[in-house]
Amino acid sequence: MNSQELIARLRGGERRALARAITIVETGGPAARELLAAAYPYTGSTHVVGITGPPGAGKSTLVTALAQEWRSRGATVGIVAVDPTSPFTGGAVLGDRIRMQALGGDPGVFIRSMASRGRLGGLARATADAVAMLDAAGFAVVLIETVGAGQGEVDIARTAHTTLVVEVPGMGDDVQSIKAGVLEIADVFVVNKADREGADNTVRQLRAMLHLADHKPGDWEPPVLTAIATAATGSPAIVDAATRHMAHLRDSGQAAERTRQAAERELAAAVQELALERLRGPAWEQFVARIAARERDPYGSAEELFGELGPT
Amino acid sequence: MNSQELIARLRGGERRALARAITIVETGGPAARELLAAAYPYTGSTHVVGITGPPGAGKSTLVTALAQEWRSRGATVGIVAVDPTSPFTGGAVLGDRIRMQALGGDPGVFIRSMASRGRLGGLARATADAVAMLDAAGFAVVLIETVGAGQGEVDIARTAHTTLVVEVPGMGDDVQSIKAGVLEIADVFVVNKADREGADNTVRQLRAMLHLADHKPGDWEPPVLTAIATAATGSPAIVDAATRHMAHLRDSGQAAERTRQAAERELAAAVQELALERLRGPAWEQFVARIAARERDPYGSAEELFGELGPT
Repeated sequence: MNSQELIARLRGGERRALARAITIVETGGPAARELLAAAYPYTGSTHVVGITGPPGAGKSTLVTALAQEWRSRGATVGIVAVDPTSPFTGGAVLGDRIRMQALGGDPGVFIRSMASRGRLGGLARATADAVAMLDAAGFAVVLIETVGAGQGEVDIARTAHTTLVVEVPGMGDDVQSIKAGVLEIADVFVVNKADREGADNTVRQLRAMLHLADHKPGDWEPPVLTAIATAATGSPAIVDAATRHMAHLRDSGQAAERTRQAAERELAAAVQELALERLRGPAWEQFVARIAARERDPYGSAEELFGELGPT
Repeated sequence: MNSQELIARLRGGERRALARAITIVETGGPAARELLAAAYPYTGSTHVVGITGPPGAGKSTLVTALAQEWRSRGATVGIVAVDPTSPFTGGAVLGDRIRMQALGGDPGVFIRSMASRGRLGGLARATADAVAMLDAAGFAVVLIETVGAGQGEVDIARTAHTTLVVEVPGMGDDVQSIKAGVLEIADVFVVNKADREGADNTVRQLRAMLHLADHKPGDWEPPVLTAIATAATGSPAIVDAATRHMAHLRDSGQAAERTRQAAERELAAAVQELALERLRGPAWEQFVARIAARERDPYGSAEELFGELGPT
């Protein structure tokens, strides 16, 4: 099946075509590029929502509850569960799939776990490309679940229109939260497990932090909401907030600017991937060996490899 | 001052030259490349140790205690505190510097906080280049402190010879730990705050997990050690383990293979950075605009930009 045909099928609602398309973009290479090129005209209408927070914050359960809430409003939902930390073994842990089984069998939901292996450019790249497939397939909302708050998660957050940061009562003090940089990427804060002791205090700390943040008139003010994801409490308010945030992005012109930035990132990533593919020729291993022996430096070697490509 | 001169000065022990060199490589671009090329012949002898773990695990305090232990053995120590999560504001939190002030004034210690802004290729790249400067300056050990367990941290761990994963009692169950992928990157486990309730249990769980892991004869077996970093308890055993691990890498030939892999990553990163610089010409913004409008796709655009470079 060629790329155009595969895209036509996934747009027609064939789940197997969608699964196959995501596998192809996850693997990368020329086949992935062809598929992305074919899908590209059909992308750009999904609301991409990132859900991030520390391990143990109940993100998978919250994602499930939010997906059910969006479904009850008639929206189709794609879920990308990112497991950024298995570069060697690949694959996600069974637990998530079990937690998410409440969504199983609903044709309006598509769940995919991502692993990072085998993809030049890393997990953020593969995730963005998988989101593009779900986007082309017509899912109204795509939820991306990521663990932690490292650079990888920040990169993935950039793919999202709206980033929900999940905190739980008693996990780390406020200095740690600032350190985790969540203030800068959060569009909506969710204090999950809000029936636990200390929840009020966590909400208060987050609001105090937000109060201290530099804020211009007309800026989006991240709400601090509470949830008990296991009981689906809080989901309607969170979905409302995410929807309001997307409207704010559109009304303020930020959506257009984000689209431009995303386009630039996509182009930069494509350029980097192609550069590596083209320069990994017969001379590559020799350069690597000489760099390892400290006879050459990496940048000088790269310049020379480029020189062989042709005049610049 | 030209690159050769700056490298000569930092190799002569001038701290200001070292600080300036790290700033240059953190910023990236042609000046950084020239500096790295000049430093490259003098690199490769430092033992690079990554220290990672969740927020609140007491990593900064542990790093301080380990640095003091290495100093007491006569080794000079560079410290790179990575704050991967401030892509917008940059800068590290004051707290770390306060915690590390016990090391202040010791000429055998050099501390640097990293931020990710302004550097093509991201924080892992900037960190590796900063480590190269400390390496060229002759520090016997370089400690890299990172937060969390995301892809960024895994990338940074690849820079290290030895990765210490810090856990604390009661933070997350074993499923979460597996999810965080720490098993694959950890060379030494440290259960910090070992005077807390549940420490024995955490140690037992980690040992059980390691027992389940696939293990070949002659493989390094990650020890599970305990520490009370605030009291510097456990530091000698941790430094011993890290030193034994480095000896294992050398004796088993893995050190050479890691050096080769590092060289390949350096070359790939250099190629990617150069590709972006060269293709960001007058046509760049037009391509970005057309991609944002979904009139073009990123990979097709990248192909065309490459085509303008010359024949391939």
